[in-house]
Amino acid sequence: MSVRKIGILGGGQLGQMLGLAAIPLDLECVFYDPAPDAPARVAGRHVCAAWDDLDALARFADEVDVVTFEFENVPTKSLAAVAARRAVHPGLRSLELTCDRIREKEFLRDAGVPVQPFAAVSTTADMDLALAAVGTHGVLKTRSLGYDGKGQRVVRSAAELAPAWDALGRAPSIYEAFVPFDREVSVVATRGADGACVVYPVVENLHTQGILFRSIAPAPISDLLAHAAERYARQVLEGLGHIGTLALEMFVADGTIIANEIAPRVHNSGHWTIQGARTSQFENHMRAVAGLPLGDTGAPEPAAMINLIGGLPPLSEILAIPGTNAQFYGKAPRAGRKVGHVNVVAPTRELLAMRLADLEHVARIHNRLA
Amino acid sequence: MSVRKIGILGGGQLGQMLGLAAIPLDLECVFYDPAPDAPARVAGRHVCAAWDDLDALARFADEVDVVTFEFENVPTKSLAAVAARRAVHPGLRSLELTCDRIREKEFLRDAGVPVQPFAAVSTTADMDLALAAVGTHGVLKTRSLGYDGKGQRVVRSAAELAPAWDALGRAPSIYEAFVPFDREVSVVATRGADGACVVYPVVENLHTQGILFRSIAPAPISDLLAHAAERYARQVLEGLGHIGTLALEMFVADGTIIANEIAPRVHNSGHWTIQGARTSQFENHMRAVAGLPLGDTGAPEPAAMINLIGGLPPLSEILAIPGTNAQFYGKAPRAGRKVGHVNVVAPTRELLAMRLADLEHVARIHNRLA
Repeated sequence: MSVRKIGILGGGQLGQMLGLAAIPLDLECVFYDPAPDAPARVAGRHVCAAWDDLDALARFADEVDVVTFEFENVPTKSLAAVAARRAVHPGLRSLELTCDRIREKEFLRDAGVPVQPFAAVSTTADMDLALAAVGTHGVLKTRSLGYDGKGQRVVRSAAELAPAWDALGRAPSIYEAFVPFDREVSVVATRGADGACVVYPVVENLHTQGILFRSIAPAPISDLLAHAAERYARQVLEGLGHIGTLALEMFVADGTIIANEIAPRVHNSGHWTIQGARTSQFENHMRAVAGLPLGDTGAPEPAAMINLIGGLPPLSEILAIPGTNAQFYGKAPRAGRKVGHVNVVAPTRELLAMRLADLEHVARIHNRLA
Repeated sequence: MSVRKIGILGGGQLGQMLGLAAIPLDLECVFYDPAPDAPARVAGRHVCAAWDDLDALARFADEVDVVTFEFENVPTKSLAAVAARRAVHPGLRSLELTCDRIREKEFLRDAGVPVQPFAAVSTTADMDLALAAVGTHGVLKTRSLGYDGKGQRVVRSAAELAPAWDALGRAPSIYEAFVPFDREVSVVATRGADGACVVYPVVENLHTQGILFRSIAPAPISDLLAHAAERYARQVLEGLGHIGTLALEMFVADGTIIANEIAPRVHNSGHWTIQGARTSQFENHMRAVAGLPLGDTGAPEPAAMINLIGGLPPLSEILAIPGTNAQFYGKAPRAGRKVGHVNVVAPTRELLAMRLADLEHVARIHNRLA
């Protein structure tokens, strides 16, 4: 049966961009999101109901041909209610293995993707074992529900681990070795319903206070490293049996790649693909979910993205910079909240760097991180 | 005052694509179209009312900050009712000078753009004068309301002119010299509210039974001819004082360019810009109408577009061809009706030609022209 109507759990900006990619393919999106002002409402019907409203979830599922998500922290019971009625792509395995940082790291290791040393911290007794296994310079993170740098503490000596765990409310946590990285990179990739995988060029990411500020494609790394990063993304897609788009975030450290985490959905570090790649990550996700052939992930020229966080510059100032395309999400600005992004392309890296400098200048004046 | 809400007269596929380009810029579109199933309804609010409903038009105008159109045959009275309340971009001059083929040709000639010999045919007496001025090989067209090859007849001898005019119902007509053209080309260009002009690469167009079937960018013509074509597009934008996007359709004949007609709006021969250019013709139109700086019209690699007419191939067959992006308009298929298009890009012209051959094969199987 051919897919015509796709249910999307979550209606944030990722949903908005999925919906805009779906319309030209004559696919209809229905978004489930408790927020009345969900940004995706401009790109499809919006079911405004609570995550624990199992009746509303059942009606939502019955209305569509297949379900996907743009928000991975959908409560397990809600997801199960939907999955009992309709196929969910990517599958629950992708969510289960990525919503818990310990299981995620174990999965990566088992899939042959290098990760830094890590250990679980669930009890006071775990702490000494963790320090012995990982070392005294590390990062303590809650096992679940962290994002944009929330729910984590850097540890610089053995004595700092216990207070860090207290600061995280003694939630079940993971203690990971600190990676003295040279660059943060990520790979966005999509796997189709037929198992075919497509991989976007590796991008270099720059975070500010834990929030992605800038992505540049392609990342300025050797082709040896780039091929390794792309291969790891394929191993993750295949290991998960993922259907749809995901992002693998990695470090480049001492000439090697170390995987950090998986986002089992379209990802902020892939927003540049809307203008910069021959097919966007959003379109490829919708193609995968609808069982269609995937599109070309190549980029004809260098591209970059800047996030607009907590405040929006005037569009006229952004668009006056050549090669730019802006996307405002229609969200009320609030410190630390992603309210838009700007893509920029240029025929050469040198020109891209100059445009990017102008763009960063405009963005930083209006960004409010905290 | 900054523009937030844009009224669009007409809600066809051009409106749909304008609306999809507007959403990322946080612009809201309201479409006025009498058809309940207007394709643009997925990209903004749809006011479903008749063209002669002056009250509905007034309410529509009052609701928005500025008005534009995707359909140039809006009745004059309806347009006047809107223009009395809100700025309309492009202005009425662009419509007046292009809705009558005689005034259009006179405008082109006066703007310094070469046109073929032409003459008005309004009475039987005009016919001899027209034959003397234009010659016996020509095309007779109604002065207004013709599109997609409708309302025109080819004349191959003096004796054929009178029957041709009868066939057009003796409507006020224009008799133009037949141009033995080598290629049909067009230029899409946008002029901003501040008078700045941007011009897309010249495209080569292929028509089948009067309907555009294929566009290829850039057109395989010399840079001398390409520069002339681009210059003519600028002269037209400036001569009209146009704000927004338009297309200038031209012939390449005997090593020169001859202008054929102006479409005072986004145009089918510019659909390739959605994937192929750094900024689409639709986004640039919305930027112009909203008073924003215009975007880069360059194309990083060769691109083409194929129209889907009267029937839709399965998406899976189209998207299996590398480099393709499809856009289905959500219209019921009917012979001769444009129901979608496919864009295709490739790193080289040679590869583009091969992909295009595959794509044309798929499209022709399903296209129904009449």
